[in-house]
Formats: sequence, structure tokens, C-alpha cells
Amino acid sequence: METLEKRILTDGEVRPGGILKVDGFLNHRIDPQLSYDMAMELKRLYEGTEINKILTIEASGIAMAVMVAYVFQCPLVFAKKSKTKNISSNVWAVEVESFTHGNTNTVIVSKEYLGPDDRVLIIDDFLATGAALKGLKTLVEQAGGTVVGAGIAIEKAFQGGGDEMRASGMRVESLARIARMTDDSIEFVRE
Amino acid sequence: METLEKRILTDGEVRPGGILKVDGFLNHRIDPQLSYDMAMELKRLYEGTEINKILTIEASGIAMAVMVAYVFQCPLVFAKKSKTKNISSNVWAVEVESFTHGNTNTVIVSKEYLGPDDRVLIIDDFLATGAALKGLKTLVEQAGGTVVGAGIAIEKAFQGGGDEMRASGMRVESLARIARMTDDSIEFVRE
Repeated sequence: METLEKRILTDGEVRPGGILKVDGFLNHRIDPQLSYDMAMELKRLYEGTEINKILTIEASGIAMAVMVAYVFQCPLVFAKKSKTKNISSNVWAVEVESFTHGNTNTVIVSKEYLGPDDRVLIIDDFLATGAALKGLKTLVEQAGGTVVGAGIAIEKAFQGGGDEMRASGMRVESLARIARMTDDSIEFVRE
Repeated sequence: METLEKRILTDGEVRPGGILKVDGFLNHRIDPQLSYDMAMELKRLYEGTEINKILTIEASGIAMAVMVAYVFQCPLVFAKKSKTKNISSNVWAVEVESFTHGNTNTVIVSKEYLGPDDRVLIIDDFLATGAALKGLKTLVEQAGGTVVGAGIAIEKAFQGGGDEMRASGMRVESLARIARMTDDSIEFVRE
């Protein structure tokens, strides 16, 4: 998606340790028009596919995901990061490692809000190693639901998570795919 | 706002300790059409007022706030809860007590994204004691910006935070104001 790639080149900053900082429009300060445009692009990509639930993980995925839910006209469920290891029996739960924060969270969704009739589009702002995406997929499987695919803002393709998920059979649509990045350049994947 | 009040009566649950659970449409599973309708109602209420930034706090305020930012066509900034007490000099920071979770968080916003030219509408899903709202107001004041007002989904008026903020001179618009609630009834404030 050209507008997103341009925005990454203009406002993104590469930080040590393979971190791409996009706090200016995606993660801390959010451009709502861009969020809406990304949602519309995912609607175009998934045209004709039955989707009745959007799933994301708090916190920075929520802004994009609620726009996706709005244009698909279906509910959004966001998985919560739980501080406690004492997980109630009313939730689906999975362990997810965070690449950015270097820790592990238990991620939960209430059983009330994810079930066997759900045809789920998973949304996240980033896809790197795929840990969050795998975790969210596991939650849908626990619920007996179907993962229709994923919609990602920025895929760091060089970290391999996206291709691993595609190889496993999941449809993954990323609106910008970064092939490599250095301190002063960002290069996108061209098909 | 009638649709929100109806939804609270239909899908809200009163829990021990003065907790109103609205996980079904506002806090965990989100109805994006309701989020959009709430944003439009705030646009109507603040018609003619100059607003150039929306500010909220992660995580559950983000869904409503991004819709508000979209209909106002201005950026959204969400304050982050920081785990560490070592706060960098690049952020505005304030301590906020959480009524729901019974703990205190350091809440931060990057100085890059909040400054003296900002005319800020603060958005949150709940207003009870007003701790979060006061904290967000403090961040705007630290930045030298102007708080134009607040837009709240549900105000638990019986906890006094809203009226305290109004008495201090802040404009606070709450889309549903709960006067009292018991295990089997929820009563709204009627002017």
C-alpha cells in the first residue's frame, strides 16, 4: 500500500536491535485517516470472503482493528495481556513472547466472545517473528473457530514470521513488507 | 445518548464493588458502529469548538478515541502505562490510580506528540473518581497545551469525579451518566 510505504519512509525511524519506530502515526500518535485507509485496503483484499469477527491484541493493534471492524461491520474482540498466571476457566489463554519488549505475556480472550461460529480476521500493527499472530491463531483454534486470514500494517519480512505463517497455510496480507532496513535506509519487498 | 443507555441496560452487568461490566460492547468485545455513533455525538456536542488533538489512555479508550479522531480529522495520541519508574526526560509523566485494577500506573506521553499548540479533547470509556481524567489533564498542562474538554462514554456520576472536574471549570460531556446502580437496576441521571 503506497501511502503506508511513503509514510514509513518519511516518518519511520530505524533503531538499534532491528526496531522500527513508527510512533508518529501508528503506535503512540495515530493518524486516524491512515487507519481508515488501511482498513479499506484490507476490505478490498478480503472482498468476497466471509468474515464475522475481527481479533487483535492490546494495545497498539486496537486503533487499526476497530476501523477494520467498522468497514467490515462486525465486532472487534481484543485479546488482553494478563498480569496474573492464575487464569480463570472462562477464558481462552495462550503464552506470547514479545519481540519489542523482550518478555512473555499470557494473552486471554473471554470464552463468551470467541466461539466455533467465528470466521476471524486477525489484525495487528506489526508482524516480525509471528509470535503474536501464532498466539491469536491458537486462541481462535481453542474456541473451535476459523482463521480466515491476517491483516497486518507492517511486516518485517526479514524476520521470517510472515512467510512461516503463509507456509503453514494461513493467508497473510501485509500492507507494507520490509525486505531489509539499515540505520539510513528501508527497502520494501517487491513481488 | 439513548442508544448507549439502552445498550448498557441490555448488555451491562453490575458486579460487586461498584463495577459495571460492559465487556460485551465497550471493553473487550467492541461494537464499532456504536464507537462511531458515540464519536459523531461528541462531534455534535463540540461543534464550533477548535480541537486539534484527541488524547486517551491505553487500552480500552483507544477504540472510541480513534473514531473520535477520525470524525474530528485530527491525530489521536494515547498515553501509555509504563511499567518502569525510570522515566526518560523525553516524556510527560504522571501517576494515575486505577479504580478498576486497584493499582497505580505511571502514565506517559512523548513530548514530541503533545505541545503548547495543542487544543485537546480528552476521551475515555469510563469516568468514575476522575483519576484518569485528572492525570490526562495534567499531561496536557505539563505540555503547555489547552484542555478543551472531555468526552466520556459512561460516567458513574455517583462516584463524583465528573462533577468535581466540572466544578474545577472543565467541560465534561458524558454520553451516559449513571445516577445509581444495584445488582438488578441501573438508573441514569436526568437533567
